[in-house]
Amino acid sequence: MNRKELFHQIQNKKSYLCIGLDTDIQKIPKHLLEEEDPIFAFNQAIINATHDLCVAYKPNLAFYESNGSVGWKSLEKTMAVIPKNCFTIADAKRGDIGNTSSLYAQTFFKHMNFDAVTIAPYMGEDSVSPFLAFDGKWAIVLALTSNAGANDFQLLQLADESKTYLFEKVMQANMRWGTAENMMFVVGATREDQFAHIRTLAPDHFFLVPGVGAQGGDLSAISRKGMNDQCGLLVNSSRQIIYASADKDFALKARAAALIVQQEMEVLLLERKLI
Amino acid sequence: MNRKELFHQIQNKKSYLCIGLDTDIQKIPKHLLEEEDPIFAFNQAIINATHDLCVAYKPNLAFYESNGSVGWKSLEKTMAVIPKNCFTIADAKRGDIGNTSSLYAQTFFKHMNFDAVTIAPYMGEDSVSPFLAFDGKWAIVLALTSNAGANDFQLLQLADESKTYLFEKVMQANMRWGTAENMMFVVGATREDQFAHIRTLAPDHFFLVPGVGAQGGDLSAISRKGMNDQCGLLVNSSRQIIYASADKDFALKARAAALIVQQEMEVLLLERKLI
Repeated sequence: MNRKELFHQIQNKKSYLCIGLDTDIQKIPKHLLEEEDPIFAFNQAIINATHDLCVAYKPNLAFYESNGSVGWKSLEKTMAVIPKNCFTIADAKRGDIGNTSSLYAQTFFKHMNFDAVTIAPYMGEDSVSPFLAFDGKWAIVLALTSNAGANDFQLLQLADESKTYLFEKVMQANMRWGTAENMMFVVGATREDQFAHIRTLAPDHFFLVPGVGAQGGDLSAISRKGMNDQCGLLVNSSRQIIYASADKDFALKARAAALIVQQEMEVLLLERKLI
Repeated sequence: MNRKELFHQIQNKKSYLCIGLDTDIQKIPKHLLEEEDPIFAFNQAIINATHDLCVAYKPNLAFYESNGSVGWKSLEKTMAVIPKNCFTIADAKRGDIGNTSSLYAQTFFKHMNFDAVTIAPYMGEDSVSPFLAFDGKWAIVLALTSNAGANDFQLLQLADESKTYLFEKVMQANMRWGTAENMMFVVGATREDQFAHIRTLAPDHFFLVPGVGAQGGDLSAISRKGMNDQCGLLVNSSRQIIYASADKDFALKARAAALIVQQEMEVLLLERKLI
């Protein structure tokens, strides 16, 4: 899905919500454990109940890999039931030497048909660029993440004249390698104080924003600071939506939780005159 | 496998060779394509032919994931045939927020029973520390990698008094979080000029050293600069060994290629009086 189509979906659904499919066998309703593939059954029900309210789904690979080949099978089946008008993000945080990154890109873009993959940038250009070689596909590069550990390296100041933070340098370098048509950045919602500044660094790029909900980020604050004229934000919520209920009504309750977020987003899109 | 046992294996086998199982369906001998699981059949033959010459095997996850759930199945079967006296490394370059890193750690250490996982450090302490909570298991953290992209961020100088390189800061921070008993560092063999210095930064830690062979690193030079009194090195070779031949004699030729490296290592271990 290219940028124009993504913005069209945002306008159409009046939403820039990304639902994180962090599907944990310990947390899903007990009655699903009787299903042949409980993880897939859960995902399918969540997707059926929410696909008109969100523009993207983001399976977190760790939750599938924790069940090995069986978990990857659940992920493959999940991808097959996500409607074509939803953007799909493999939250995989991959990144390796060139020939290995090429294989990861083929895995997620070709074998699994994801629209985007999250990328850890520590290994530099040849670890990122193989993800930029596919039409309509996206590298979503970690910039400033939502966790406490972001302070350890991402917020180190560099010995250049302007004492740039490492995450700023990461964004600047990546913007030389990719464009606003094939690259997004991860910017945590818990970094609200940095949001307006980060938008000036990358005026046109989409940001994938985790950290709203369970991690405490403020949707309206980061939206007002971070939106651009194509919205430019995909705001992720995982646990708050998919685990809204642990009973048989879990899908309905997930829909209700997603609807609350979508309605808040509709107001924010109207305020910014994007719909 | 703990550090004492690892050093014992090194002394016993007179080798600190790690064989990278970068098993590519395009590169394995054509006659194996008739097997039910060609990737597993190749790995099994390579392991049978080399396990007395190497101390470790390092499957590169990208090569398995590129075949989705089927590839993960090949990896699970491969892990089941690696002898117990071989150290096993999941070359996965994982790293995410705490609860997700915990799941990755469970995946590789519990579900798959690897001894070690390679870790990308960009997200900081809570992305690394979940991998340090398992007895006899190891986080192998990227420090200075073998690829050209290492120059982009790892060799940036920081705005501290001594203008530390980012990779040095990464090593210093990680050495506060882990110990020489549960943490190693990736140091590329192509960084020979930095090897003696990096050994002074982490005198006791094992280094996983890729980049010998196809990438051009010099085994004897990095060994002389990088060894400590428990050897402290696992030197990886992948393509040069496993693709020594594309014919029916591939396993024998892989053994011959591994033997050349083992014999060079034996001389270097003798020189350092470690055997």
